[in-house]
Amino acid sequence: MKVKVVTRILEANDRIAEENRKKFSDAGVFVMNLMGAPGAGKTTLLERTIQALKPRMKIGVIEGDIVGSDDAERISALGVPVVQINTGGACHLDANMISEVLDELPLRDLDMLIIENVGNLVCPAEFRVGEDMKMMVLSVAEGHDKPLKYPLMFRESSALVLNKIDLLPYMNTDMHKVRNDSLALNPKLNIFEVSCTSGAGIDAWATWLSGLRS
Amino acid sequence: MKVKVVTRILEANDRIAEENRKKFSDAGVFVMNLMGAPGAGKTTLLERTIQALKPRMKIGVIEGDIVGSDDAERISALGVPVVQINTGGACHLDANMISEVLDELPLRDLDMLIIENVGNLVCPAEFRVGEDMKMMVLSVAEGHDKPLKYPLMFRESSALVLNKIDLLPYMNTDMHKVRNDSLALNPKLNIFEVSCTSGAGIDAWATWLSGLRS
Repeated sequence: MKVKVVTRILEANDRIAEENRKKFSDAGVFVMNLMGAPGAGKTTLLERTIQALKPRMKIGVIEGDIVGSDDAERISALGVPVVQINTGGACHLDANMISEVLDELPLRDLDMLIIENVGNLVCPAEFRVGEDMKMMVLSVAEGHDKPLKYPLMFRESSALVLNKIDLLPYMNTDMHKVRNDSLALNPKLNIFEVSCTSGAGIDAWATWLSGLRS
Repeated sequence: MKVKVVTRILEANDRIAEENRKKFSDAGVFVMNLMGAPGAGKTTLLERTIQALKPRMKIGVIEGDIVGSDDAERISALGVPVVQINTGGACHLDANMISEVLDELPLRDLDMLIIENVGNLVCPAEFRVGEDMKMMVLSVAEGHDKPLKYPLMFRESSALVLNKIDLLPYMNTDMHKVRNDSLALNPKLNIFEVSCTSGAGIDAWATWLSGLRS
């Protein structure tokens, strides 16, 4: 019974995701679903990415949080269009939530739409929202055992950004293991190492991302 | 319709949680539900807590993970009884999962049972499993905005362990804000600052915890 309900929810979600996909495609906007655990640094990476890409392309943002609008305010300060979704209690964004806010964004004026999901390494990876690609941020402070413990998100992502590398000297995270276990789950995964604090690695990441658009 | 289904699931869960509660009470075991984001340091805190309390009390552990048994093996190495639950894909433990493994543990021989939940700041707080108390671990590397973004877990927890304080010199986490925002959500919250790496604060935390049993 429980499984049946979940299946129906996922099927309904995929149908709406497909409608979103068509709207994005018609508007010519590339859509990225940005995922990661609470505190991985998703919003800060988003700020750095927008700063790096703003001279080259028009970016819009959808912020997903359970409550509050702190993240949307941070992004709005960069002068890009942003909409905040509050899920109420849900631990992920779904296609319907995205569908309901699309009219709030100037899709046809955008080159790229970045959707920041709720902080969670599990459920966001299960719910398509109509994106062209999923990517995830992992803070090196989360430790090297995450790929094996939360495999679906690593499998579903096209890119993995390893953030907070400025903290590596002060911890015993085995980066070799993170990379190996991630690539074992997903051999096509593009891995980037960055520090949003120092700015290290941001250019390489942003350049790769902008190349996907063309 | 969706809300109706969710309500029914939560009601069924609470009924089974109540049955678990009775079994724990009959066996005279104090049960703690340990929650936190991926990489907050739940398992390492559990190791340190067991090391500190083992001379004083008999502890058993239930480990919750989506896949794998790494955490259960780490705990088993400390010589305490442990059972691993794999949720398959579910982002939290529920009362039924706990109910199904209770026969695997020598409940009557235990003083305390610690249930380590799936790494997630959202859903674990919604599902009672029959525990006497919920507590959460927050890594200071997750940043100071977590109480306002994931309020339910802060409200539901009796204790908040702020972990990885050895990293504070290398980041700009505002501990004053973490404490204030947490206490605004939950004025009865007991807050501890620890470093599982250096051992700082572990004794104070373990002593407080052992006092709950008596």
